Amino acid sequence: MVVPPADAAEAARRRLDALTKPRGSLGRLEELAQTLCRISGQCPPPTRQAVIFTLAGDHGVVEEGVSAYPQIVTSQMVENFLRGGAAVNVLARQVNAKVIVADFGVATPLGPRPGLESVRIGPGTANFSRAPAMTRTEAERAVDAGITLVEQARRDGLDLIGTGEMGIGNTAAASAITAAITGIAARDVTGRGTGVDDAAWERKAVAVERALAVHRPDAQDGLDVLAKVGGFEIAGLAGVMLAGAAHRIPVILDGFIAGAAALTAVRIAPAVRHYLIAAHRSAEPGHRHILDALGLTPYLELDMRLGEGTGAALGIGLARAAGAILRDMATFKSAGVSGGDEPAG
Amino acid sequence: MVVPPADAAEAARRRLDALTKPRGSLGRLEELAQTLCRISGQCPPPTRQAVIFTLAGDHGVVEEGVSAYPQIVTSQMVENFLRGGAAVNVLARQVNAKVIVADFGVATPLGPRPGLESVRIGPGTANFSRAPAMTRTEAERAVDAGITLVEQARRDGLDLIGTGEMGIGNTAAASAITAAITGIAARDVTGRGTGVDDAAWERKAVAVERALAVHRPDAQDGLDVLAKVGGFEIAGLAGVMLAGAAHRIPVILDGFIAGAAALTAVRIAPAVRHYLIAAHRSAEPGHRHILDALGLTPYLELDMRLGEGTGAALGIGLARAAGAILRDMATFKSAGVSGGDEPAG
Repeated sequence: MVVPPADAAEAARRRLDALTKPRGSLGRLEELAQTLCRISGQCPPPTRQAVIFTLAGDHGVVEEGVSAYPQIVTSQMVENFLRGGAAVNVLARQVNAKVIVADFGVATPLGPRPGLESVRIGPGTANFSRAPAMTRTEAERAVDAGITLVEQARRDGLDLIGTGEMGIGNTAAASAITAAITGIAARDVTGRGTGVDDAAWERKAVAVERALAVHRPDAQDGLDVLAKVGGFEIAGLAGVMLAGAAHRIPVILDGFIAGAAALTAVRIAPAVRHYLIAAHRSAEPGHRHILDALGLTPYLELDMRLGEGTGAALGIGLARAAGAILRDMATFKSAGVSGGDEPAG
Repeated sequence: MVVPPADAAEAARRRLDALTKPRGSLGRLEELAQTLCRISGQCPPPTRQAVIFTLAGDHGVVEEGVSAYPQIVTSQMVENFLRGGAAVNVLARQVNAKVIVADFGVATPLGPRPGLESVRIGPGTANFSRAPAMTRTEAERAVDAGITLVEQARRDGLDLIGTGEMGIGNTAAASAITAAITGIAARDVTGRGTGVDDAAWERKAVAVERALAVHRPDAQDGLDVLAKVGGFEIAGLAGVMLAGAAHRIPVILDGFIAGAAALTAVRIAPAVRHYLIAAHRSAEPGHRHILDALGLTPYLELDMRLGEGTGAALGIGLARAAGAILRDMATFKSAGVSGGDEPAG
């Protein structure tokens, strides 16, 4: 995977400046249009087939009392995804995106279900405040499984990738990954997740701190970080990102957990960074630090903190709009509108 | 028109808290859902039929050299709207919204065109830096025409109103309105519009200052402000907003010019304020002051400054998403997900 060349982005800039609007007047929508062209190497960029990968996994660290919800909720929410009743389903339908749901290791086995990809690495991770979350081999298998999901989805056409996840306790894992890779103190990147009280927040921060102190994940080694303090679904998302980048498919990040996965993916292959788009900034305090570390400026800031791919769904809507601007707007010349030759200003 | 009662917003809050997500985790999307319920008095709120009213008019103040584009562009862009090639058409199609295009007084007569509402108040306003833009009677006629457009559109169903406009020179009028109503200095609410250079910006600021000094519009009298320093299309938008509010239809504001129209509408009928939703914050410096004056927090901040209804189109997408959350998401109870009875936290 390489840094994408600038050709298509330059073609996008020329086309954007020829369209019937003052130059630059669509602001960040124009920037997004250019980014989509740069990533895909095409202008206009393909945006028709969008898939949100919503990967689920459980986390042993819930034993420490770090979540407001019981672990069973992970599998219950997977059932909800499969029935189309969760927030990500609703928001994905609004932008005509498909949701691919995968069990990467839910504690309560779900059994075969229509529409469920079963790539169980294990029955949830180990409690990382006591032992490494998984083995390095398991981390590799989870990453590979994420890659495979993208390869499968490409057969039906795949122009935009959205990332999503579900896993009670996974904000604790995301906090640990963020602290490990950015070097920022655990307490500064640990938030309230689903909405824990002060006592649970304290337990969560302690669990993250202990995990980092005991396992000393290597910040330069994405797989090591995933294995020691990650999650099966987080490793899977890193794989989704690696595969998206390899195929020059824009990867539209959701919030905090997807961002943590992106940190590990970029450690595995730094060029991945150029294929990522930050849909929004989550209300989780650590997300801001992740976006800074990735050098990404989010498009939306709506105080969302749900995950599942809900922010990615809104980002897909924006990406479609940006692509349509390039594809469908008239130029000054084609519309016979005066003033297109002059620089604005 | 009255301040909408809180009943439906309270019903929305109860339903939002019963849905399968941590309480409040969809952030401002939940706030938007509540607002739509409060305005419409229904939960879930109707969001199916969306119309963007893109009203066009010319401005005599262009004689002062305040725009980067020639006046003929107003009529050329109206033709572009009718052919579906402008940015607002493209973004409206993305969210399945209809664009109603109306000539409120374009300098170059367009003649009858399929799809064009002709409600010409005159061949453009007078140069407000020399004489009042229009008579009070003309301002009233333009407002009435905006109201009539909404009444007509309601026959086909109208659940969400987007506001848009086109008029070379109309950021100068919007600056004058904003200064007149908020009392903020003209120079602080005068921006670069389509992208003027320093010299043109100076001419624009001088023209606005002179208009305010000579005509002394009454800040308490929305029609007086519209007549002295407004525009036909801006007065029309005020009418659209009044009618939307009267029928409890959410009015999704576009940017700076729609915001200036809203300032006048709220002066005409203060309760209108409760029916307005700010889609985005424009890059035009005056828009921030308008939103402050209206007490509205925008949902998007994408550095857009195009007008036409482009920001409103994106706002309609968010409103649809917010409505769908209320309508289509499963509850903890219906989905058999644990934890819904407990307060998050």
